[in-house]
This record gives sequence, C-alpha cells and structure tokens, in this order.
Amino acid sequence: MKTRPVQAQDIWITGFNPGREALLTDRIPVLEMILSRSDPRCRELLALGTSRGISVRQESREAISALVGHSHHQGVALRVREYPYVSVESLLERPPDEREPLVILDCLQDPQNFGALMRSACFLGAKGVIVPRDRSVGITGTVIKVASGAISYLPVAMVGNLARTLDQLKERGIWIAGLDVEGNSSIYEADLTVPLGLVVGNEQKGMRPLIRKACDLLLRIPAGGPLQSLNAATAGAVALAEIQRQRIRNE
Amino acid sequence: MKTRPVQAQDIWITGFNPGREALLTDRIPVLEMILSRSDPRCRELLALGTSRGISVRQESREAISALVGHSHHQGVALRVREYPYVSVESLLERPPDEREPLVILDCLQDPQNFGALMRSACFLGAKGVIVPRDRSVGITGTVIKVASGAISYLPVAMVGNLARTLDQLKERGIWIAGLDVEGNSSIYEADLTVPLGLVVGNEQKGMRPLIRKACDLLLRIPAGGPLQSLNAATAGAVALAEIQRQRIRNE
Repeated sequence: MKTRPVQAQDIWITGFNPGREALLTDRIPVLEMILSRSDPRCRELLALGTSRGISVRQESREAISALVGHSHHQGVALRVREYPYVSVESLLERPPDEREPLVILDCLQDPQNFGALMRSACFLGAKGVIVPRDRSVGITGTVIKVASGAISYLPVAMVGNLARTLDQLKERGIWIAGLDVEGNSSIYEADLTVPLGLVVGNEQKGMRPLIRKACDLLLRIPAGGPLQSLNAATAGAVALAEIQRQRIRNE
Repeated sequence: MKTRPVQAQDIWITGFNPGREALLTDRIPVLEMILSRSDPRCRELLALGTSRGISVRQESREAISALVGHSHHQGVALRVREYPYVSVESLLERPPDEREPLVILDCLQDPQNFGALMRSACFLGAKGVIVPRDRSVGITGTVIKVASGAISYLPVAMVGNLARTLDQLKERGIWIAGLDVEGNSSIYEADLTVPLGLVVGNEQKGMRPLIRKACDLLLRIPAGGPLQSLNAATAGAVALAEIQRQRIRNE
C-alpha cells in the first residue's frame, strides 16, 4: 500500500516527550513516525512505534523542520489523525508553580490567532491552554506552524462545557480573569500574581455572556489612541507579559 | 472610459483628515474618492476632489467598510496609487507629547506583521511609524486591512537611509531603543518614560548590525519558557504596552 502524500494541513506531534506520550496511549491514531537520530531515547520511540505497527522512517533534522514548519522538534515527528488534547485534570494535577497561568480561549475562530497566541503564551511562561470543543478553532496544521514549536511544550485541553471547566478551576484555587474592552480593572492595576486563568474571547464578539459572568476579574488593556481594541492574540500576549512582569517583580 | 474594477490590493486613504491632506498635496495621484455623507466637511472634500478632476461617488458606510476592510473611515475613502508617506521632519515638528513614542521597523518583511503592529501601535498610543525604503515591506492593501483602521490615524514615514534617520532622531532628543533577544536591559527594568523610538527588526534576523549599533538601548523581553523569541509584531506590542504602563504610572 502506498503511503498517502504529505498534506499542508497534516497534524504533527513533535518532541521526545509529546511523541512518547502519544505512543504510550492507545487513544491517538499515529499515522507515521519520522526520526532524525538513533540515540537511546529515539530507540525507545522506535521500539514503541514498531510494537504498535506504525510506519517509521529516518529523515534529516532539516527535512523534519520543513515538514512540521518549525525547528523545535528534537528530531521527533509523529503524524496523527487528530491532535492529542490533554484533560483539564492532567493540567491541574501538576505542582502549583507548574500549572498556571493558564490561557483559556472562548471561541477563537482564526487559526492564525490561535497559533500566534500559543507561541506568545509559551514564550511568556503560560503552562497550558484550554479551548471549548464547539464554535472554536481546534489545533490544525496552520495552528501548529504559526505556533513555531510551542506545540511541543504547551499542553492543550479541549472541553465540552467551558463554563463548568471554569468552576472546576475556581474550586482548585485558580482565579478567572477575562480580557474585556469594557473591563473595570486595568491590567496594570489588578493583582496578577494570584493563580490565574486568563480568558481571551472571540475576535469579534469577545467572551460569551455566560463565560464573562463566570470571571472573577474583567481586565482592560487601556487604550492610548483612537482604536477600540487590540487583536485578540495580541491582547492575550500583552496581558501575559504583564502577568510575567508582576511575578518577576515579586520574586 | 470604464473605471478599473476594484482590486483586493487597492490602497485606500480613509478618514477626513488623511483624505483632506491627500487632496491638498499634488504629490499623491488619487484615482477615485468615495463618500458616504454630505455634511459640510464632506462637501469640502467633494469640492477639492472635483477641482482636481477626481471621480467621486456616493456609497453607504457599510459598502465603504467592505471596500477598505475596516470601519474607521468616517465615510471617506480615497483610492490612491501609492500610500502618501509623510516626512520624518513632519513627525518631529509636532509638540513633544504628540510626537513619540515612534515605532521604527528595520526591514520587516511580512505585511501581516506590519499591519498587526500598526494596529497595536495605534491602540497603545504610538505617534508615528518609520520604515526604510529598501528591503522592507511598504504599505499595501493587506497592511491597511490588517491594521484595522490604524492607517487613518498613525502617520508613516519611509526613509532612504534609516541609520541617518536614527541620528536625526537622536539629535532631536529621542532615545533609540532596539528590541533584541540578546538585549542587556529587560523592558521591565529599563526607563521607558524618556522620549523614545522603538526599533523592531526583521522577523528572522532581527535588526541589521548598523541599526543595532545605533541603538542607545537594547531591550529584551524576558523568556518565561523554552521558546527563544516572540513574533516581531507581538514583541513590538508587548514593548509598547510596557512603555504605556510606565508612563501611566508616572503621570
């Protein structure tokens, strides 16, 4: 049987740990695995892949970079049918200083924005992302490419009922702060050193009313000119930078 | 003679003041003018346009929004052959509190990034943008659309020799601060309340060596995770937000 040609919209899992996790769970249909090295860690992946009957081939680092669209792959790339979202529980069971800030996307539509925000969130120290299953862009090949490697480090959970997930986070001591052009707290004045889940809403409509209502804080980025709003991904990055700044200052 | 059909890459000047300025200078070939209203200010534009022999038509606000790609047009849209860049001198002759921070782009390539940065810069209170003529993206239809109306408010200068322009800015009391992944000052620690020109470099290579050397400050956005850099437009937005924060605090 001939292998299906590689598609621009292929979904790639990259990096040792994400690759290993994908191979250890039966949940994820792995279509093929590409390795650029043969050190002990790669041999472990090879053995795992072979035992699951997955087609494995060797390519150069550069060839893998070209396929997956970024260079943060550590010589490991698995083509999968669907991105292996993690559970919210798995995000929360990590040690307190490794589980937040979380980024919560309420119905973002544009894969460019999702990918851009993944990249910024990873760079600025966010520890995970939560997206709703419906009316929201999921992880596509475009998201993976624009995220420039963030997909190898930042776990993403997809949930059926985002409002219920916010309750779950609050029960676990995480404050929910939503970005809102009419928010009553400036990001520069609010205390962002508490355990935090930052909600970024839809590009046009912002957060849905139910999600907005569930927020402990409504954060505003002060406008310094005539435009009314920032791009959603940019607003998320600016807020995450301010979270980072306040925490560096507090150390 | 039939009018040429409207193109996706058309360059539109929007808003009363930018439209009026374009009509008052002979420098800019205006291809057509579209107005949605007939109040005294629009009648002035109509008279100016007619006296220059420019084709004028009436459309709804919504139709103009669809043509220009944003709604910040005040019912005024002029289709032009090339965007009317301003001079650096005109940026500098404004009152001190209306002439900076300036955003200086050193060979940005991607119109999406240019447009995104225009939008962020306008929202976060920047007062003008400077780009080099060579090896750099100029203002295209894509830039105008992604900038979401910023083009109506934020003047853009295009210069032949960017290093010389930086000298000119420094002579006028403006500090040049370049964003650099290896910069020695964290944006959170540097004093960004001084008159400032923020340099954002090329997406892959950052600033050119000569421009980097001309900077008074090299600013770094601290990484909080494994990725090495932010997207160029996002980095610019994060730095502009920090400039804004420090100035609000100082008021």
